[in-house]
Amino acid sequence: MRAAAAAGREVFGYNRSIDAVQAATFDGFDATDHLDKALARAADSNALIVLSVPVPALPLMLGYIRDFAPKCPLTDVTSVKSAVLEEVQSFGLLEHFVGGHPMAGTAQSGWSAGNPRLFVGAPWVISVDDHVDAGVWTMVMNLALDCGAVVVPARSDEHDAAAATISHLPHLLAEALAVTAGEVPLAFALAAGSFRDGTRVAATAPDLVRAMCEANADQLLPVLERTLGLLGQARDALAAKSPLTDLVEAGHAARIRYDSFSRPEIVTIVVGEEKWREELAAAGRAGGVIRSALPTLGSRE
Amino acid sequence: MRAAAAAGREVFGYNRSIDAVQAATFDGFDATDHLDKALARAADSNALIVLSVPVPALPLMLGYIRDFAPKCPLTDVTSVKSAVLEEVQSFGLLEHFVGGHPMAGTAQSGWSAGNPRLFVGAPWVISVDDHVDAGVWTMVMNLALDCGAVVVPARSDEHDAAAATISHLPHLLAEALAVTAGEVPLAFALAAGSFRDGTRVAATAPDLVRAMCEANADQLLPVLERTLGLLGQARDALAAKSPLTDLVEAGHAARIRYDSFSRPEIVTIVVGEEKWREELAAAGRAGGVIRSALPTLGSRE
Repeated sequence: MRAAAAAGREVFGYNRSIDAVQAATFDGFDATDHLDKALARAADSNALIVLSVPVPALPLMLGYIRDFAPKCPLTDVTSVKSAVLEEVQSFGLLEHFVGGHPMAGTAQSGWSAGNPRLFVGAPWVISVDDHVDAGVWTMVMNLALDCGAVVVPARSDEHDAAAATISHLPHLLAEALAVTAGEVPLAFALAAGSFRDGTRVAATAPDLVRAMCEANADQLLPVLERTLGLLGQARDALAAKSPLTDLVEAGHAARIRYDSFSRPEIVTIVVGEEKWREELAAAGRAGGVIRSALPTLGSRE
Repeated sequence: MRAAAAAGREVFGYNRSIDAVQAATFDGFDATDHLDKALARAADSNALIVLSVPVPALPLMLGYIRDFAPKCPLTDVTSVKSAVLEEVQSFGLLEHFVGGHPMAGTAQSGWSAGNPRLFVGAPWVISVDDHVDAGVWTMVMNLALDCGAVVVPARSDEHDAAAATISHLPHLLAEALAVTAGEVPLAFALAAGSFRDGTRVAATAPDLVRAMCEANADQLLPVLERTLGLLGQARDALAAKSPLTDLVEAGHAARIRYDSFSRPEIVTIVVGEEKWREELAAAGRAGGVIRSALPTLGSRE
């Protein structure tokens, strides 16, 4: 709300907590704890609805949206995308839905934790799944850009696989390394940079780590299997007194490729033209980001 | 040589490289490329010999020491300790040997890469294996303290197991994570802190990573097996849609214990008294360090 309002947008919100609504109202924002009224108002003005609830709260919210504002454009900011997509589909709300994931946040929650510059410079993933409508996509793109984010177009399944690899898998490796070291006498006494870096995220609250890994189990499993396979080969090489060349050379090459990974601006794609979803997905996969609004052919609506 | 000379010690050295000897001589140090002469001089003055060569060069050096200076006190600065211990034993030089590992260094090598303050504040592991002599141990302790290091007493096998866990294992995990992410479309595009920290050491030169992991294979294998076991349990839990509680809670607890690990000064142990080696090993295991010379009952020699 803060970021959208700071960009000059008309914005109104619902929260189930009366305290949060009062705090937002006190700060001059248009907020209510009446979900049906907020949604009826959204339906009247065809407002873009931004769902900002954890996965378990989705069914309740989507039920209300189906009943009160089924034609409104709809997006979300949840960190897993396929699970949200399935829920939205099961409520028959897919037509006007475009998933999103702004990769920004703090360890705090609640109204007081927000600030209007939270999204400045952050990647905001916007889904380009097969069903998405060009008009709704453009509305979500404009919201993200208004909030100061850079847009990364991505399919929901690819987003979840990438998040599993670059966030959830490192958490599991850090936990396993910390446990292993905790069982070796003298390990903590000699621990230095390699160990500190490798276990830093093990200091994250256990409930948070579990929630994100367990919610993305389908995507986390294959990358965990792949890592287990690579480490198993290293184990076999060590046991056979064979060289570790394969893993070490490949790991070094991958990390060097990451260090030189560039973020070109996406400028030549028109939203709504033929194959626009596939082209945006390919551009995002290659590191491309949208920094200013792409031209659009508009909605099918 | 620089650090010992800066502490006011008489020091002389051998290097097989004429260039290195000339550079050291130019800087005012007493250096030679005649190994037999250097060792004969060491034998005449019962000097403490500090072996600073990689493991493959050990047999050649130990053969000369056996022939020219078999009674001299002897230490080393190699990063694996059990392999050195075995070589020294095979040359019949165990009686006057106390292994060491100053945990300091740079990515550069050669005479020009040294500086007299390299060891200031660094942990210098000194072995308290069953055979070590109190008199030689005290000489090595005094050298380390003169160079500005803090002494961590440890058994060679425990040192190698700890190094495998806190240095070699994190390197393998980083390589595997980098390879896995390199195969997932969009992973590099979304990669952030968790991935960067988890793969930082994969940027290390592959030959260096292989050399240290392969030389310590015996100790690296069991900790790699343990980590594979923990990650395998997590894989099974994810596949069964079961919670990841065991790994995540234990990893968090271990990392928190590491964060609060203290480094008490070892002050109450007398080198040479009954069970002094076991007491020093236990103190080092608990994080204890020696910051000023311990009292000593002297050598059995």
